[in-house]
Amino acid sequence: MENHNKHGGYIGDGNIIDYSVNINPFGISPRLKENIIKKLNSLDSYPEINGDSTKEKLSEYLSIDKENTIIGNGATELIYLFIRAMNFKEIAILEPTFTEYERAAVLNQIKVVKLLDYDEIFKADSIDCLFICNPNNPTGKLLSEIELESILKNAKQKDQIVFIDESFIEFSDGRTAKDYIEEYNLFILRSITKIYGVPGLRVGFGIGSKEIIKKMDRIKEPWSINSLALDALELYLIDEDYKKKTLEWYKREKRRMYLLLKSIEELEVFDSEANFFMIKMNISDGNELKKYCLDRGIYIRVCEDFYSLDKSYIRIAIRLEHENDIIVELIREFFKSLNE
Amino acid sequence: MENHNKHGGYIGDGNIIDYSVNINPFGISPRLKENIIKKLNSLDSYPEINGDSTKEKLSEYLSIDKENTIIGNGATELIYLFIRAMNFKEIAILEPTFTEYERAAVLNQIKVVKLLDYDEIFKADSIDCLFICNPNNPTGKLLSEIELESILKNAKQKDQIVFIDESFIEFSDGRTAKDYIEEYNLFILRSITKIYGVPGLRVGFGIGSKEIIKKMDRIKEPWSINSLALDALELYLIDEDYKKKTLEWYKREKRRMYLLLKSIEELEVFDSEANFFMIKMNISDGNELKKYCLDRGIYIRVCEDFYSLDKSYIRIAIRLEHENDIIVELIREFFKSLNE
Repeated sequence: MENHNKHGGYIGDGNIIDYSVNINPFGISPRLKENIIKKLNSLDSYPEINGDSTKEKLSEYLSIDKENTIIGNGATELIYLFIRAMNFKEIAILEPTFTEYERAAVLNQIKVVKLLDYDEIFKADSIDCLFICNPNNPTGKLLSEIELESILKNAKQKDQIVFIDESFIEFSDGRTAKDYIEEYNLFILRSITKIYGVPGLRVGFGIGSKEIIKKMDRIKEPWSINSLALDALELYLIDEDYKKKTLEWYKREKRRMYLLLKSIEELEVFDSEANFFMIKMNISDGNELKKYCLDRGIYIRVCEDFYSLDKSYIRIAIRLEHENDIIVELIREFFKSLNE
Repeated sequence: MENHNKHGGYIGDGNIIDYSVNINPFGISPRLKENIIKKLNSLDSYPEINGDSTKEKLSEYLSIDKENTIIGNGATELIYLFIRAMNFKEIAILEPTFTEYERAAVLNQIKVVKLLDYDEIFKADSIDCLFICNPNNPTGKLLSEIELESILKNAKQKDQIVFIDESFIEFSDGRTAKDYIEEYNLFILRSITKIYGVPGLRVGFGIGSKEIIKKMDRIKEPWSINSLALDALELYLIDEDYKKKTLEWYKREKRRMYLLLKSIEELEVFDSEANFFMIKMNISDGNELKKYCLDRGIYIRVCEDFYSLDKSYIRIAIRLEHENDIIVELIREFFKSLNE
C-alpha cells in the first residue's frame, strides 16, 4: 500500500519506525489512556458546543481571560478558522515553514508573500498579517525574545496582525508569546498532540487578542471537538509531572542525538529548539536516503516540498534512544554504500 | 451550572434523563467500546488525511464509487463544508427543521428562503439549492418516494441542487435517496451517531454526485476526523446484527410510546418516522412542562426556536422502556397539577 497521508506520517503495511512525524515516541500517555477508558461511556453525550468548561480551565491554567482562548479540532481547524474569520487581503509567511498556512490562504483567495529572512519582515508593508512558526517547522529555529518583540512592535505600527504557531514551543527554551496578547494584535496556536502522543485524537488550542477570538468564535462550527479530546486537554493542564519528565528526557536525548548526527561528516545538522532535526545532505539526496531507509523499516521526511528547500534537506524526529541509534547507524551505512 | 450546550443536550450537574437528544438510549455499543479500547494505542498516529481507507470500505458497503463519498467530523462539518464549497447565492429550506442549515448559509452571506409546505418547493424558482431533512427533525415526517422523486425531477429541470439530511433515515421505513446520485445533482447527509450512541465521537458521512464531492474535497480541511471516529465508522459498516436488533427494538418501543402519549388528551402527538416525537400541547406550554420535568430529573426539548413552531411544541426522544413510562407519567401529573 502506498503512503497516501501526505505529511501526516507513514500509513501502510509493515512495522515501520516513523521519523517523519514529530510525536512523543513513548506513545500515548498512560494516564491519558486510563482517563479515556474511564470516560468512554460519556461518548453518548454531545461534547460541549465550543468546549466552554474546558476553556474555563484552560484560561485559568494560562492566567488569561476565557475570552482570549479558543479550542480546536486539532491545530488545523484553528489555522483555517483564523484565515476565514479575519478577511485578510494579503499575508506574509516566514519560510520555509509548515505548508498549511499557505494552503488555507490560497483556498480563501488571499495573496501570499513569502519571506525568507527575518529582515524582510520589516519591509512587508502591504500585508495584513504575518505568519511565523516558533520554533519553526522544519528548521527547528527559535526567534529570540528581542526578535519577537521587534516583530510585534513593527506589526503594531503598521496595523498588522501576527499569527504565531507555537506547536513546538514546549520543546524549546523559548518563552510563549502569550503575555503579549493584551498589548499586540496577536494569535498564538498551541498543540498538546506532540507531547501527549495523541495526533489521532485531534485537539489544539489558540490564545489571542479578544477581538480576534471573537471573530473566530462567530463563524466557528459547533461541536467540532470530540469529548475525548476535550478530556485530554483538561488532563494535560494538570499533568505537570508527565510534561516535566517528558521534556527533560527530550532535552537529554536531543543533545545526544545531535552529537551522533553531527559526527557524520556528510551531514550538516541544524541546531533545533524543537523535537526534530533539519539536516542538509552534502552528497546524494533525501529521496535516495528515504528509499534506502524505507527498505530497512525506517521512514523519514524529505523537505523538497517546503518553499526554498530541496531534496538535499531531510527532517527526522527524535525517537527512543535505541531507535535513534538505529537511524544514525543506517545513515552511516547509506553513505558507505555510495562509495562501494 | 446552567445548561449552555444549546441543542447538544443537557450539560450540568445531577442525574438527569435527557429526552432532548435523539441518541440510542442503550448508550455506546459494547462492541464499539471494546474496539476503541483495542485501538487506543493507534492514537499516536495521525488519522488518514481524509479517511481514504475508510471511504473505500464505506463505498463498497453502499455499492457506490469512492468518489461519491465523503467523511466528516460529525455531520456538522459536512453541512458547513457543503455550503462553503458550493458558492450558492440563494437556498430554500423546508421548515420547520434543524437550524444549522440556515446558520451555515447566513454565515456565508447566502439568501435563505423558508418554505413551509411541500407544494411551495415547486414555486421556488430562484434558488440554487433546496435543503430537506428526511425524516425531518423535529416533526418526524418522512417524504414518500413519489414526493422525493418529484422534488428531484423539479430540481433537475431548474438546475437546482438538493441537499437531503438523512440522519434519521435508518429509524424510518423510508428508503435512502442514495440510488439517485447518478441521475440527479444531490448531496445526502448521514449519521452513525444516533444508532451507535456516540455523539461525543464526531463522525458522519456524505453521499453525493461526484461533482459536488469534488468541490467539497477541494476545500476540506485535512485530518479533521479523529482515528477513533474512523474506526467506529468501519465497525458500523459490518455490525449488521447490532443495527438490526437496535432498530427492531426502536420500532416496538416507538409504537408503545406513541400509544401511551396518545392516551394523554391534552397532547397532540405527531406520527414519527424517526426516534423521537414532536408533540403539541393543547394547554399550558412547553416551557412550563420543561421546568416541571427538570425539577424532577427529566430534560425535554421545547421547539420554540424552530421556524414556525412555538412554545406549545415539544420534542421528546424515545428512551428505555422504564424511562418512557416515567416521562409519560410525569406529563400526566403535570396536567393534573394545573387543575389543582
